[in-house]
Amino acid sequence: MTEIRRDPITGRPVVIDRAPFTRRDDFVLEAVRLEDPPAACPFCEGREAEAGPEILAWRDGGPANQPGWSVRVVPNRHPMLRIEGGMDTRSEGLFETRDGLGAHEVIVETPLHDQSLQALEADRLWRVLWAWRTRLQDLKRDSRFASVVIFKNHGRAAGARLDHSHSQLAAYPILPPALAEKVQGVNRHLDATGRCIFCDLIAEELADQRRVICDQEEILAIAPFASRVPFETWLMPRAHEPRFEETADRTLEHLAIGIRSVLSGIDWALEQPAYNLVLHSAPLTGEVDRAFHWHVEILPRVTRYSGLEWGSGMHRNPVAPEEAARVLRDR
Amino acid sequence: MTEIRRDPITGRPVVIDRAPFTRRDDFVLEAVRLEDPPAACPFCEGREAEAGPEILAWRDGGPANQPGWSVRVVPNRHPMLRIEGGMDTRSEGLFETRDGLGAHEVIVETPLHDQSLQALEADRLWRVLWAWRTRLQDLKRDSRFASVVIFKNHGRAAGARLDHSHSQLAAYPILPPALAEKVQGVNRHLDATGRCIFCDLIAEELADQRRVICDQEEILAIAPFASRVPFETWLMPRAHEPRFEETADRTLEHLAIGIRSVLSGIDWALEQPAYNLVLHSAPLTGEVDRAFHWHVEILPRVTRYSGLEWGSGMHRNPVAPEEAARVLRDR
Repeated sequence: MTEIRRDPITGRPVVIDRAPFTRRDDFVLEAVRLEDPPAACPFCEGREAEAGPEILAWRDGGPANQPGWSVRVVPNRHPMLRIEGGMDTRSEGLFETRDGLGAHEVIVETPLHDQSLQALEADRLWRVLWAWRTRLQDLKRDSRFASVVIFKNHGRAAGARLDHSHSQLAAYPILPPALAEKVQGVNRHLDATGRCIFCDLIAEELADQRRVICDQEEILAIAPFASRVPFETWLMPRAHEPRFEETADRTLEHLAIGIRSVLSGIDWALEQPAYNLVLHSAPLTGEVDRAFHWHVEILPRVTRYSGLEWGSGMHRNPVAPEEAARVLRDR
Repeated sequence: MTEIRRDPITGRPVVIDRAPFTRRDDFVLEAVRLEDPPAACPFCEGREAEAGPEILAWRDGGPANQPGWSVRVVPNRHPMLRIEGGMDTRSEGLFETRDGLGAHEVIVETPLHDQSLQALEADRLWRVLWAWRTRLQDLKRDSRFASVVIFKNHGRAAGARLDHSHSQLAAYPILPPALAEKVQGVNRHLDATGRCIFCDLIAEELADQRRVICDQEEILAIAPFASRVPFETWLMPRAHEPRFEETADRTLEHLAIGIRSVLSGIDWALEQPAYNLVLHSAPLTGEVDRAFHWHVEILPRVTRYSGLEWGSGMHRNPVAPEEAARVLRDR
């Protein structure tokens, strides 16, 4: 039996199968690694020149663009958006175009070719979060950028093109639709109740407990009610925090521990699947105050994006989030 | 260089690379076929009992559920939505659920295991379109269904789980988001101008010609201005037709020829890629008149759905539609 649930933030429906969890034989368990040879990897320590000049790095002393870093941020070599370009919109009949203005950066998460994000000790993973926060603080100063989305592709099925662990940052001159629909949902609830919907959601999830995966003091990890894919997980600060770039060190420490714990649980439950990770923070411009609450989404990629999703915009998820949370809690 | 374009119907942005088309080595060209053994295929002629009782079939005489058919419609064996269930919505705090009510059917497009849709002669492909139309006419009589989406997964990367050529039909008790956002866009233009936006789009594309792929008398095939994936193609009736279920035989003849022609061009340009196909028709209920215009979308799957798409809801397309249309016209 299935049911149709609505995401409480966006209102987007999803079809959920209500059956006990089993490792289904129809899951896509494509080889995660691309097996690109380390000798040709631009992200390995010692080949800093190939990855490009560093925008930011965590170093224990030593000069820039040399070995000796633990996290390094460089421009994307095939950027989706560039800092050159204008803000104008050009219209021709029904057709509207603007320059691909923005920024597209790569956060190399470790100097070691074979070390995954979840294999990093929490204090090393923290440095990745520090890099995300620092880049957000910096990009915010460019008034042309309306928003930043940080994301990660781990494994072939998730769209990774290099094995060496890295995340990416895109700064946009607009609000991209996935962020815009959340901002709308948050504002709808704020207008109706005067409260942050994420804060209300956290209170309901804590009272209910069925979808709580782990409660890491300042960070809560839940399987969202309208999970789009098996073992989708959201990590959120328990306190109201609109902007990731203003988050305190200590909260990021708990986030690092939470991400490690969730990813190792998912690795166990789904046999080291490919996954995507997304960070949504408040739009860069405008007053937000109560009108956003940053969060990290982890999306294991064991199901395909098929004609069903293209045609309906609605996912079918074969694992109920209550089941996913139970499996992760019980291990 | 890239640019950000807005889809004229939905307003959804997409990032398009402006470079001449080459068969890029970063395209995903995963093996299309799953190589499931024909001996175990439930859709092959002679195993009608395994596929389930037929809802509809094109037969030259002979009894139901026996060999002798060219197209056969059966219930999906693992249905996403079922005809049992209620229409009620249950709310608990922020969480809203309803039964997975609807219909989920499979259209087996040929009795032969190895025959692809594009390998069917136009008059055989027409029978598939006839089956789509007939099922829409029938499902429309059930007042619980708000909309139908027909889709096809061809090849592993597109989500196919069986090699035997088939499409699927889902009837929903709601408007799924991908259809809802088109209906909204159509209504916005209708309110502003009194005209159908698809009709206006067709006039602009015909005047411009750069994105026209083929002009099959009653059916026009274009590479849409804000194509989400390389060689995305839309096929639409040139005359204003809101509802696929009311379309005349002759228009479907031209659609069959158009689909064959587009798929064979895409097979040539992208080396037999996986693809999805989607049919969007007006919602089943309510007066539509000018407020929709049915169309078929073909989406080759040579790029991955990655963290970028999850995080932004915005696709990056490495092939401009003008390039795709030129390549397909020039072959």
